[in-house]
Amino acid sequence: MDKISEQVRGKIQALIAQLENASRVCLYPHENMDGDALGSCVALCKRLRQEGKTAWIVIDEPVPDNLLLLDQGYCTDDRNLALTADTAMLIDCGEPSRIGSRAELFLTTPGKLCIDHHSTSRDCCDINWIDPAAAATGQMIYLLLKEMGTEPDPEIGNALFAAITTDTGNFQYSNTQKISHEIVADLYDWGILPNQVSMEIYESNRPERILIESRALSTLKLLFDGRVAMAYVSQRMFQETGAAESETERVIVKMRSLKGIDIAVFLKEKKKGSISISFRSKSDRVNVARIASAVGGGGHTKAAGATLKDMDLSEAWQRVQEAIADELGRAD
Amino acid sequence: MDKISEQVRGKIQALIAQLENASRVCLYPHENMDGDALGSCVALCKRLRQEGKTAWIVIDEPVPDNLLLLDQGYCTDDRNLALTADTAMLIDCGEPSRIGSRAELFLTTPGKLCIDHHSTSRDCCDINWIDPAAAATGQMIYLLLKEMGTEPDPEIGNALFAAITTDTGNFQYSNTQKISHEIVADLYDWGILPNQVSMEIYESNRPERILIESRALSTLKLLFDGRVAMAYVSQRMFQETGAAESETERVIVKMRSLKGIDIAVFLKEKKKGSISISFRSKSDRVNVARIASAVGGGGHTKAAGATLKDMDLSEAWQRVQEAIADELGRAD
Repeated sequence: MDKISEQVRGKIQALIAQLENASRVCLYPHENMDGDALGSCVALCKRLRQEGKTAWIVIDEPVPDNLLLLDQGYCTDDRNLALTADTAMLIDCGEPSRIGSRAELFLTTPGKLCIDHHSTSRDCCDINWIDPAAAATGQMIYLLLKEMGTEPDPEIGNALFAAITTDTGNFQYSNTQKISHEIVADLYDWGILPNQVSMEIYESNRPERILIESRALSTLKLLFDGRVAMAYVSQRMFQETGAAESETERVIVKMRSLKGIDIAVFLKEKKKGSISISFRSKSDRVNVARIASAVGGGGHTKAAGATLKDMDLSEAWQRVQEAIADELGRAD
Repeated sequence: MDKISEQVRGKIQALIAQLENASRVCLYPHENMDGDALGSCVALCKRLRQEGKTAWIVIDEPVPDNLLLLDQGYCTDDRNLALTADTAMLIDCGEPSRIGSRAELFLTTPGKLCIDHHSTSRDCCDINWIDPAAAATGQMIYLLLKEMGTEPDPEIGNALFAAITTDTGNFQYSNTQKISHEIVADLYDWGILPNQVSMEIYESNRPERILIESRALSTLKLLFDGRVAMAYVSQRMFQETGAAESETERVIVKMRSLKGIDIAVFLKEKKKGSISISFRSKSDRVNVARIASAVGGGGHTKAAGATLKDMDLSEAWQRVQEAIADELGRAD
């Protein structure tokens, strides 16, 4: 493995020094925790407990079903545990606003540390190790644990594997690095069970999810000479399938897999009557942030969103199509 | 990377010696070529050409759309090129029956070599390097190319990445090894573009595929107290969506991802009127080979198939349900 830089080693050493003096540590993953946020927290939490410290992951939402295998007694929503901590750590996020209602607990803790890989994060703690080049926060935790002299441990290894594989899109996203593979290769010597972890994370679908995905994708339309894929999901479909609104999150990913399209757009009719819209661009020629902002939303060049209020699905569909027409006229 | 064993080194050296004496080499991937078969062939073919040899990949079917990026002028269906070869190699397969109608071309070539990782392969060539522990034939080709002194080359690297990532299910299947990650980590120094390769392989779906998948998955039924997932696709659905019969291949994979099921069963009405059935088991308790053989098919414990003739979808569905009832009665 490539040597880590002096700067990174400096950050790690400062974090270790601070943690050596800590005795009650609370870890804060970001809201809507994912595999990287929770896996990173679990790996660090177990290591801190191995050192005899009191360590907890503070949450205020249920651990998602498909990540439950990671939480072998590390997560708590007990505010008293959080209030008596001497050290609080933001993990996989870099600002208190990313931890929602837990921010006050975090802010009242005397010592504050941050380990994160999001480029939007700013220094907000006593020590901030933020590395936007890291494919996953789990990779940073691995480097920290190695420097702490952590012995190979299958549970820590599985948590780190979960973190890395989910945030790299199973090693397919463009953020994946040489070191992502080097770390996972090393974790094989820790006794990890990648296939079991992966089955839990990815093969725990409810039938309702598969049915709502089918219903949504059956509305697929290719427009603008095949450059634009659009689809929608209605409240009626949710009622008929019994699916939760969150269970359509992968529809846009599937739409994005269409050959030859420039953009994918997915409209979701929410309970309260508004229409939430996800935009994805597959092409450098089309900036979906501009389309989103034309209908009152925003985001990044390749991924953006908007919420349209006081209109039904067909009006929203029409409105979005007009905004796309404007952007494609500009792009050509 | 762990040192390769003396036995493996012996095989590699024998292959290199034979290839040094070759001047016209033809490579044969298995029928229904996949990323590992074609990627392995492309990597080796380019290396042989770098050595000044005439080298071709002999095929008799079109290269699948999503793998076209790998074939930069390596594949041919010209029988004369095959007939004038002095050396023929089975790649990612280990018996002439796996190359269909090309078997006669292969068998008439004087020198025959084999590199494969399928456990069912038997020695059928002058030199046979068969390693069922290897997650992908591409990993074996990598070791061979390293031993041949191949310089880092992005095109060869991308072909090997395609081979390894597809046959390991993006590093999630239980066949994935430490060395799979070590090899890919090394390929990063060859200038590979994993995300571009992956986008081509996985994000080249036709809309017809997404529509037929939706139609098929919308028939999903959970039976036997949620232990069995069943779904079907009819000729009418193919006609209405314009999809090809091969475009439902991933339906059973999606069904298998259901939480809590023991088996998934997918029925496909074929053009000629027969019903082909795929069985997958997620559980060690249920052997789908027994269910398949009860309806005239066969296969492995976890993956099996059958074809029912002279009956319609609803009769076949009924017949399969009865066979499942028998097997579940036995399993409990």
